[in-house]
Amino acid sequence: MGIIVQKYGGSSVADTTKIKKIAEKLSERIKQGNQLVVVVSAMGKTTDNLIKTAKEITENIVPRELDMLLTTGEQVTAALLSIALNDIGIKSKSLNAFQLEILTTDDFNAARIKNLKVEKIENLLKEFDAIIVTGFQGITEEGEITTLGRGGSDTSAVALSAAMNVDCEIYSDVAGIYTTDPRIHPNAKKLKNVAYDEMLEMSSLGAKVLHSRSVEIAKKYNIKIYCGSTFSDEEGSFVVEDYLEQPSVTGLSVMDNQTQVTISKLPLDYTLVHDIFESVAKHGLNVDMISVISNSGLNVSFTIIEDEKHNFEKALSDVLKDLPKLNIQYHSGYSKISIVGIGMRSSKGVAAKYFKALKDIPVKLVTTSEIKISCLLEEKYKNQAMQSLIKIFDL
Amino acid sequence: MGIIVQKYGGSSVADTTKIKKIAEKLSERIKQGNQLVVVVSAMGKTTDNLIKTAKEITENIVPRELDMLLTTGEQVTAALLSIALNDIGIKSKSLNAFQLEILTTDDFNAARIKNLKVEKIENLLKEFDAIIVTGFQGITEEGEITTLGRGGSDTSAVALSAAMNVDCEIYSDVAGIYTTDPRIHPNAKKLKNVAYDEMLEMSSLGAKVLHSRSVEIAKKYNIKIYCGSTFSDEEGSFVVEDYLEQPSVTGLSVMDNQTQVTISKLPLDYTLVHDIFESVAKHGLNVDMISVISNSGLNVSFTIIEDEKHNFEKALSDVLKDLPKLNIQYHSGYSKISIVGIGMRSSKGVAAKYFKALKDIPVKLVTTSEIKISCLLEEKYKNQAMQSLIKIFDL
Repeated sequence: MGIIVQKYGGSSVADTTKIKKIAEKLSERIKQGNQLVVVVSAMGKTTDNLIKTAKEITENIVPRELDMLLTTGEQVTAALLSIALNDIGIKSKSLNAFQLEILTTDDFNAARIKNLKVEKIENLLKEFDAIIVTGFQGITEEGEITTLGRGGSDTSAVALSAAMNVDCEIYSDVAGIYTTDPRIHPNAKKLKNVAYDEMLEMSSLGAKVLHSRSVEIAKKYNIKIYCGSTFSDEEGSFVVEDYLEQPSVTGLSVMDNQTQVTISKLPLDYTLVHDIFESVAKHGLNVDMISVISNSGLNVSFTIIEDEKHNFEKALSDVLKDLPKLNIQYHSGYSKISIVGIGMRSSKGVAAKYFKALKDIPVKLVTTSEIKISCLLEEKYKNQAMQSLIKIFDL
Repeated sequence: MGIIVQKYGGSSVADTTKIKKIAEKLSERIKQGNQLVVVVSAMGKTTDNLIKTAKEITENIVPRELDMLLTTGEQVTAALLSIALNDIGIKSKSLNAFQLEILTTDDFNAARIKNLKVEKIENLLKEFDAIIVTGFQGITEEGEITTLGRGGSDTSAVALSAAMNVDCEIYSDVAGIYTTDPRIHPNAKKLKNVAYDEMLEMSSLGAKVLHSRSVEIAKKYNIKIYCGSTFSDEEGSFVVEDYLEQPSVTGLSVMDNQTQVTISKLPLDYTLVHDIFESVAKHGLNVDMISVISNSGLNVSFTIIEDEKHNFEKALSDVLKDLPKLNIQYHSGYSKISIVGIGMRSSKGVAAKYFKALKDIPVKLVTTSEIKISCLLEEKYKNQAMQSLIKIFDL
């Protein structure tokens, strides 16, 4: 009973037939006594198509105008869903980021929610049973339109849940969170519970990707997220703070198109290491699997996404222009395989099992955290490694 | 030099190639020393397609949500044009109705502009050379999104011109305003000047239709409108208060699908006539060519649009339910042909020439105003009547 925030992803609202089906589903829930705040994504491939249209004009798209362009997608879905609900007698109203005053930072294309006014929704719920909210978007204090980055509708939904202190249900084509991607490994197991920290460590856990900022917010405000299937009654998964009966390893994830960067024989000066990563962060680039070994000099190694190599070289050249003789090597065509589990904290022997599984595979780099072990290997060994890890950890 | 408001219609911005061409055109104008406020419509058939999508859900579309849906169209165009301008080095920014605070009444689908804040544009013009504004839309004081009705982008443009007290240029695929529709009559003449009153009397004058509210605003604030061709240098037409060398008849227009309604032998009570037209207005229906003749009783005759016949009968039944024996006749399949000209006021013999032109045609109804004569006839006589009028008035 009470108020619930729900979110429907792009493929769930891809056409008007699906939108009508969702309206029926919401109607049943409302008849059971709930009131719904429904966050929607853009229909199907709308966002991709808008980007494609903009790229017909130029590859050099002003970030501010890109957000102006992309936010139209969710507004279309919100209006159509509200039209469908009103048509079947549910009092419904759609709201965009301006109307809801979802305040964000002014980082166009990757803004962060600072504040949102739920009083308006709470007032409207006295008159309406369903409030449809455009996901993915916000406004700055100056009234500029921003977006939260791909997958940002998850974050809109969880932020609304947190502000209203109600449960959050995230619906997509996949019923829940799996130990690994069920589209690739049909035997992947569905998880009943996943901890926030596990989701954060493995944002691409299984086929269900939650926008990582949404999990951060859920963790901070202790919002229980239910991830379910839009059009089936199959039981989904819960993302929670903690849960009983944790297996030592919960899930496995893979990221392809990794490039390993190795900088050898840096002068023994950690300021330089700091400068490197600061410049990388300033350029908005992500690095992972950082490993720094001090020998005669410093050897720094880490991974980046292959597509970002060009930008990365630019970021690095700013810092290293006074060290022209430095040896920087790039190795592409790697995959990163990670296993994650909050149970690792209390289980012994996970690392031993892990290396046993990979004993026949030439691993390039291994990094670990308290609840995660990742390794980097050539893509051709990926399947062999995954099968072996799935078997040994019963995923 | 100085600031100019321009408006580009839907077919002028139908694809990214056209949007890039418009950006080049604006760039040249800016290099000549102008600053531009550019109002854009939705691309090509976008608005029609959005309505079609909504109708896949239901024919019964909530007006409030329809506006939420449709306003996305102009925002897409505005963002794309601003992307194109920035790409070629023009400092440009797009603004929607929220950002510009275009305040309207809350008549969804047919709102009227009440106020708009040009201070924001004027401030932005210190930093930017082109401000792209989403046409057709506004917001209410409560932050609801509204639209101004089909063709409303003309009104957005003229209202901006009026508020900033600068000239207005409206571009489309047709270079200017013609004596009659050049797509049907290739010999139609382009008019150098048209008076506001002429445009108001004949909103479908030639092929160039200006949203009639835009002409009302232009007349009220004495804003000169230039109607020109987007992609050719062909000279267009000006819409102005008054002009020299007025021909007695400026233009000819045709409206098909007219239905004549005749109510015979009403009791001699003008309250009843008032009630009829009040009920019709309340139902949002338009009537034209009203003729009331008092004989033994009252005979009331007027025209409506064929499509509105059903709604019209409903409006009428409310009023006439106490007069069940009344004789109401409907005749459909008529066309209305009008000639317009502010020169009529000072020319004699226009009516004589008019009836001479139509002497062989069975005309059903004739009404006149100070600057317009309209007749109703069966559609099969339309072409004969038009040819004859075009010839006699040299249109």
